[in-house]
Amino acid sequence: MTGSRPPQQEPNDAPAGAARRLRAALAAPRLTRAMGSHSPLSARLAEEAGFDVVWSSGLEISATAGVPDANILAMGECLDAAADLASAVDIPVLADCDSGFGNVNNVIHMVRSYEARGVAGVCIEDKQFPKLNSFIEGNQDLAPLDDFAGKIRAATETRTDMVVVARLEALISGQGMAEALRRADVYERAGADALLIHSKRKDPEEVFAFREAYRGDLPVIVVPTTYNQVTVEELEQRGFAMAIYANQALRSSIRAMRETLTRIMRDGTTLNVEPEIAPLKEIFDLQRMPQMLQQQERYESLGRELAEAAQ
Amino acid sequence: MTGSRPPQQEPNDAPAGAARRLRAALAAPRLTRAMGSHSPLSARLAEEAGFDVVWSSGLEISATAGVPDANILAMGECLDAAADLASAVDIPVLADCDSGFGNVNNVIHMVRSYEARGVAGVCIEDKQFPKLNSFIEGNQDLAPLDDFAGKIRAATETRTDMVVVARLEALISGQGMAEALRRADVYERAGADALLIHSKRKDPEEVFAFREAYRGDLPVIVVPTTYNQVTVEELEQRGFAMAIYANQALRSSIRAMRETLTRIMRDGTTLNVEPEIAPLKEIFDLQRMPQMLQQQERYESLGRELAEAAQ
Amino acid sequence: MTGSRPPQQEPNDAPAGAARRLRAALAAPRLTRAMGSHSPLSARLAEEAGFDVVWSSGLEISATAGVPDANILAMGECLDAAADLASAVDIPVLADCDSGFGNVNNVIHMVRSYEARGVAGVCIEDKQFPKLNSFIEGNQDLAPLDDFAGKIRAATETRTDMVVVARLEALISGQGMAEALRRADVYERAGADALLIHSKRKDPEEVFAFREAYRGDLPVIVVPTTYNQVTVEELEQRGFAMAIYANQALRSSIRAMRETLTRIMRDGTTLNVEPEIAPLKEIFDLQRMPQMLQQQERYESLGRELAEAAQ
Amino acid sequence: MTGSRPPQQEPNDAPAGAARRLRAALAAPRLTRAMGSHSPLSARLAEEAGFDVVWSSGLEISATAGVPDANILAMGECLDAAADLASAVDIPVLADCDSGFGNVNNVIHMVRSYEARGVAGVCIEDKQFPKLNSFIEGNQDLAPLDDFAGKIRAATETRTDMVVVARLEALISGQGMAEALRRADVYERAGADALLIHSKRKDPEEVFAFREAYRGDLPVIVVPTTYNQVTVEELEQRGFAMAIYANQALRSSIRAMRETLTRIMRDGTTLNVEPEIAPLKEIFDLQRMPQMLQQQERYESLGRELAEAAQ
Repeated sequence: MTGSRPPQQEPNDAPAGAARRLRAALAAPRLTRAMGSHSPLSARLAEEAGFDVVWSSGLEISATAGVPDANILAMGECLDAAADLASAVDIPVLADCDSGFGNVNNVIHMVRSYEARGVAGVCIEDKQFPKLNSFIEGNQDLAPLDDFAGKIRAATETRTDMVVVARLEALISGQGMAEALRRADVYERAGADALLIHSKRKDPEEVFAFREAYRGDLPVIVVPTTYNQVTVEELEQRGFAMAIYANQALRSSIRAMRETLTRIMRDGTTLNVEPEIAPLKEIFDLQRMPQMLQQQERYESLGRELAEAAQ
Repeated sequence: MTGSRPPQQEPNDAPAGAARRLRAALAAPRLTRAMGSHSPLSARLAEEAGFDVVWSSGLEISATAGVPDANILAMGECLDAAADLASAVDIPVLADCDSGFGNVNNVIHMVRSYEARGVAGVCIEDKQFPKLNSFIEGNQDLAPLDDFAGKIRAATETRTDMVVVARLEALISGQGMAEALRRADVYERAGADALLIHSKRKDPEEVFAFREAYRGDLPVIVVPTTYNQVTVEELEQRGFAMAIYANQALRSSIRAMRETLTRIMRDGTTLNVEPEIAPLKEIFDLQRMPQMLQQQERYESLGRELAEAAQ
Repeated sequence: MTGSRPPQQEPNDAPAGAARRLRAALAAPRLTRAMGSHSPLSARLAEEAGFDVVWSSGLEISATAGVPDANILAMGECLDAAADLASAVDIPVLADCDSGFGNVNNVIHMVRSYEARGVAGVCIEDKQFPKLNSFIEGNQDLAPLDDFAGKIRAATETRTDMVVVARLEALISGQGMAEALRRADVYERAGADALLIHSKRKDPEEVFAFREAYRGDLPVIVVPTTYNQVTVEELEQRGFAMAIYANQALRSSIRAMRETLTRIMRDGTTLNVEPEIAPLKEIFDLQRMPQMLQQQERYESLGRELAEAAQ
Repeated sequence: MTGSRPPQQEPNDAPAGAARRLRAALAAPRLTRAMGSHSPLSARLAEEAGFDVVWSSGLEISATAGVPDANILAMGECLDAAADLASAVDIPVLADCDSGFGNVNNVIHMVRSYEARGVAGVCIEDKQFPKLNSFIEGNQDLAPLDDFAGKIRAATETRTDMVVVARLEALISGQGMAEALRRADVYERAGADALLIHSKRKDPEEVFAFREAYRGDLPVIVVPTTYNQVTVEELEQRGFAMAIYANQALRSSIRAMRETLTRIMRDGTTLNVEPEIAPLKEIFDLQRMPQMLQQQERYESLGRELAEAAQ
């Protein structure tokens, strides 16, 4: 028989494996770090940099698609984006699913769809459909408590292994700490696997206060976009389970592209930007071109051996 | 804690489960029956009628999309179609993957993609890209033996559990029985899980002759489109493992729609076709509307209980 | 120079052309007949049977996809389905867009997207998101009048040529004739191009009454699903502009597939169903296989001429 | 009647308009500058920077998707990517279509599909399917001349207005200048609207030599990736019609994301990268959030006026 085992492939974990690893990461004492992503390529850069989790970011994905972060992209597009990330990396993907794309029936369809595509976890927030990005002035009304509790229960009873994160928007919507804590308790009883407490304050005091006042057992996640001075050490000491850096990858790419394009336009040549941009070889490596050529050679060679043996 | 387990959901088997069941069906002494399908709805009708396997038919899917069966639809569209079938039924889906959508690199990408989407098996044929439907006069040239053997090896080393079927087009292309048998032997050594011997003869003698002359260990599959007088009993007695009824569902729907539309146009009312078409309730049942309403009621009620407990 | 003009292609009208023809059809004294469709193939059958318009039916499309008709499919999937119909036929496509897939921002995104894909018209109904099929018992609440009037105005100011139909669900939701008429007036002032008055009564008296009482200038469309005894002549005499046969094509295909599959299973052969199903040649014709082979021969021949001239 | 015309929308040109503008740009004496793009967001940055044309880059799109640039992505994915760019900007989009995704039938389907989606031009290259990125060592064999001439003729007879660019790979494949010129002549007689002469030399002498030796009437396009010292002025003086900066946007984003992610990981905070990445407001502006909020307010207000008038 010709041939031994092939060269290193991309043995993407079964969905269940990814979900289990996300669950374990949330339970571990160490702070888990998630990086927001908008493409398989950016997800690979996050994995290479050492992040534990990829956050399939609604803001990054909608902005990359050129549409507002306000449920203009629907479930299908968000699902495809998250599934593409999950195919590209070995670390688990946690997907930003806004308010669940509709009512409880939409949530159930969403959970089945995301789980079937290998996404490790979904995060739904207690706002109404269509939702608006939390950093924008506008309708930030909370969903009625019973509606959202029903969605969390539906999600957790529908999934097999996938992690279900309940995102609390009470502080964003101006409903205050008591409401955040009351809802945290209900979502925990509804079966949520983790809580995400969102805040748009310039300092972390609000999320620190929540973490201290919350007496339940769920891991608590934060998104330090506006309170960007906070450190991994502080968050770990305060007892948080995960920090999501939700949009910095895209923001860095916007700055870089803007500057590079402006210089090419101004200079009339790309010569001057060459030292500051990745060489072609980095693209080829990130898209796994060498592995492809290696496997092609391997199987063309094995094919010839097999055919010759038939003469 | 509120609520017990939910009403009967659609617990789609893990991909691996579907692949195992397809493998077991091919190994069983009883003839496995596969029905060609072009939509989740038609797949459900096949499942309800008692078929063992859904064949994600390239001909049905391309015709439904209104394009020729000649690789006008590319892998992405075929994958989405097959994955949608797999989501809709509990029986395994075997996907018609033409000649593998390109070279060995395309085959590897195809195998990863189909397996990740829960498709139980893929079938690739030893023709060249772009392929032409086997019942059409035109280029039916075979792929070079080494190329196709390399593809089969690549497919079987890449998949985890998924079934890989090698489809022999030697009889279609006029290369004759000796070539069909020679290739069968090579594909078996390359690692194929099953062989599909295709024929466009009006009687089954050609495929019977192949089955008798083939001395290997692989299950053999047939597609009795042109030799439609053959029965399940005959095929079973002759030692075939599976029969694929590849296009009859679509053909029956074309006839019915054509007649119904013509009558509505002629009569100026739908009154006369009503007795001959499914009532709305059948549509609702096929799309699982009652289950949806039941689950909605369940989770809205659970949501209210959870919220009330928080007062 | 080699070659003259190619054989008959499929010169799909520019989107604007399709919209203009739909508008003209709605304005004509003759009743326009639209046939519900769920695939390019079924749309071609409708065109061949002589229908004037293809209705991209939410019920047919969701059922074909195996999911409830309750906004489980989101805009992206509905758009792709409607655009595929528009690519397959020369008659205009009017798309069932439920309640507009969200709020006014979603409607604006929807209008731009559908118009860019060559769909001649969109129809939105005054229910809430997620909507439920009108023939199902459940939440059939109307959208607040101001919300829906804003959507109609947004749609008509956003589109260039596309037809915008406002569908009235007041009779479905039990709000009564006065409400239907009040809303008809507001939607007309908001800029709607046509009204669709929906009813689930077993007889057409309700829609007849609406047509008589409505004093505005817009064409009025009906969907005679439940009052199927009504004829084209009656509708024309009563002054309706268009009848949509919204689901009979799919219903006929379900009945036919169910019977055919059951018989194949029972008989153990397809021999007996052959006379009742379309021959393969009909599929090939519907997918335009002969035209493809003709064009392939033409361009391969022209390519040889061009290459030879270069020697 | 309430309301005047809406605030500035995104009046995407009709496809035909974009094609005409691309054609005019290629005919103008000034060098046209195209920027490679991989997302609507990056296309908007190119438009803002002043580029004339967006190049829907096969390399950028495949790399962003995390797969090799070797026809792993098929036509559907490339089409969707190019169409999304065309929806996002007002400047014309020229799409990299590799070798046409198969044979002449695939090219015809491709041309219809791209034109229907508003893409201004397509570029096909005279290599075989599946093609490999031109900067990679491997199979760079040319397509037979007659095959490719037939594709060009098929493309130009199928399109209505869209620009068809024939890309010459003779210099890449080592076939030499004479072959490049011979093919240029054939492609011109086949009906191509422009030629793209590709080279992987470190200096522009090779493309300069081609431009000088080519005696035909077609505009000539270059891709100065490896000979990046060449300037717009030089190219214009030499008589080139367009320069495509095919991958610098993506390369700058890779460098930036890599550095930013590494620093966030190392620092345990995003504080230090903040000054070097775009603020959130830039994202919101690029995704047209302000316009969306404005239009929402406008139509909600108009909706209220319309509803109140009905009391």
